[in-house]
Amino acid sequence: MPLGDEFEIIKVIKKTLGKPSKNVLLGIGDDAAVLAPARGKMVVTVDSMVEGVHFDLHYTTAAELGHKALAVSLSDCAAMGARPMYALVSLGLKQELGQHFITSLYEGMKRLAKQHKVDIVGGNIVQSPTALIVDVTVIGETKKKALTRGGARPGDIIAVTGDLGGSAAGLNCLRRLGRDKLGTRPEIVARHLRPTPRIKEADALVGLGAATSAIDISDGLSSDIHHLAEQSRVGMGVEQAQLPISKTTIAAAELIQSSANVWALYGGEDYELLLTITPKKFKAAQAALRRLKTPLTAIGEVLPAEEGVKLKTLNGEWADLQPRGWNHFVRRRQGP
Amino acid sequence: MPLGDEFEIIKVIKKTLGKPSKNVLLGIGDDAAVLAPARGKMVVTVDSMVEGVHFDLHYTTAAELGHKALAVSLSDCAAMGARPMYALVSLGLKQELGQHFITSLYEGMKRLAKQHKVDIVGGNIVQSPTALIVDVTVIGETKKKALTRGGARPGDIIAVTGDLGGSAAGLNCLRRLGRDKLGTRPEIVARHLRPTPRIKEADALVGLGAATSAIDISDGLSSDIHHLAEQSRVGMGVEQAQLPISKTTIAAAELIQSSANVWALYGGEDYELLLTITPKKFKAAQAALRRLKTPLTAIGEVLPAEEGVKLKTLNGEWADLQPRGWNHFVRRRQGP
Repeated sequence: MPLGDEFEIIKVIKKTLGKPSKNVLLGIGDDAAVLAPARGKMVVTVDSMVEGVHFDLHYTTAAELGHKALAVSLSDCAAMGARPMYALVSLGLKQELGQHFITSLYEGMKRLAKQHKVDIVGGNIVQSPTALIVDVTVIGETKKKALTRGGARPGDIIAVTGDLGGSAAGLNCLRRLGRDKLGTRPEIVARHLRPTPRIKEADALVGLGAATSAIDISDGLSSDIHHLAEQSRVGMGVEQAQLPISKTTIAAAELIQSSANVWALYGGEDYELLLTITPKKFKAAQAALRRLKTPLTAIGEVLPAEEGVKLKTLNGEWADLQPRGWNHFVRRRQGP
Repeated sequence: MPLGDEFEIIKVIKKTLGKPSKNVLLGIGDDAAVLAPARGKMVVTVDSMVEGVHFDLHYTTAAELGHKALAVSLSDCAAMGARPMYALVSLGLKQELGQHFITSLYEGMKRLAKQHKVDIVGGNIVQSPTALIVDVTVIGETKKKALTRGGARPGDIIAVTGDLGGSAAGLNCLRRLGRDKLGTRPEIVARHLRPTPRIKEADALVGLGAATSAIDISDGLSSDIHHLAEQSRVGMGVEQAQLPISKTTIAAAELIQSSANVWALYGGEDYELLLTITPKKFKAAQAALRRLKTPLTAIGEVLPAEEGVKLKTLNGEWADLQPRGWNHFVRRRQGP
């Protein structure tokens, strides 16, 4: 079915999303949504995905795109230790997309939204002649002190949730082999196409008061750790040998003869949390995440600012860790 | 100066915006902003402007674009009777833009934000290879019942703030004559390039409890009145002779031999409020807006649903009023 006009598209979206929670006093269909306010402090973030820059419809389905566009904004919310409440979706649509695409896009978003009790409360639709754009604003709340990039102290343990390099593994395999050839290995592309925002993990860590700073890994570990270091005015020492890398990522690297270690450092889009944690609370933090079946791995230690950001390589030498990875406006991707 | 990388652009934005209000607990530069929550109910809306669809950099300056992109989202907030608090700005930038463009864009937004005590608290920047995109989310609050499109009752007076057709006048003159030729007539293009969101007017009307329904005129009176009629399940009778049209708009129509009456009905982007008002409160509403130096003009009456949406033309005959005007995905503009 063709896309139809703006009002037909809104009808399709309303139908796909179904009934919102009771927090939504007025949902899709008026000039704005009316919502129960945040309790405590409000946390807001927005993220965009542009076709040809952030995704390729040759190997991303509409449902996966919907999932990921919401996931990256939820991940920002997690990095603040906030609970997400609402999402607004602003779409720039190409005329050639059909109604089925819209339905699938919103089904992908809805599934993830439901898992985290997030209401998709409204948005906007415009025509975008050359590239599909999905822009998601997330509003959340936190009753505790928000986690920022600015609280790391020398002596804190640097830790990451989950594992690293999985998204780069998927992206590189998709680019090299195409999606069809990877049909029998869905686990290789899952991390790239359907990342998991670490909402519950962040909530558990905030509950413990364990984390002193946090960021989600979107640009890549090597870049994002520099953001923490700069905002906290500290140095960072990371050990390559400690970086958690999954068997799937290692298998993907073998498949296309690439380096899982490089992906883990520079790959980006893992949407794991990079945290600094008070040493005496690290074991409790690890136990709390174990209950959520999410590993929490110590990968290094916060250092005084004058030490800079350093990496202990696999041969045991310390070297400066340069920020490489995703940076808009320089190149599409600076790293490997 | 060239655009620079993402982090340089963020620095330019932070510098341009300066210090936010004390409601902003954590502003630009972390994964998300941390904000004092809405009191009462929260009202949220998002709107996008895409180059080539909504604006043309041949006759819109960066500062005007910034103003308008924020104004259209503030206008949605006004249509709900809410007070805006925060804005988030998501940009899709073409590489060829310079830092000066970014500074001017944010200066345009900042001036308008300041007038309405709105903090610009964050956003996102991505690369958009072919078209500049400015997407603005506004978060507001209302302690009273929000104004919706759904409360009009037969017998209510239909009214508009300000005057109609001014934006279409500017757009058509710009397209026909170019901006240079209009240099001596800045008043003709002002309404199109720098629309005024009717925040204070909405606030005054909500204070009086005068309005039963409201929408802002973005698509055009003929379209937007249908939205009110549908959501309220009523008919509408509008008199062409009552439509407020400014001398500037009439002069613009003469300049390019076009019709101010047609612009007033179908033009769109006036960002005036279209309201239905309880008859016994109409005089008080008019007086309240007079104190803000904004006219409030009765243009017709809400009718029973079976009467449909009708226009009394200048020759005194009643005819169906067809919705024409802006509709994405059908044509760029359906009306004249």
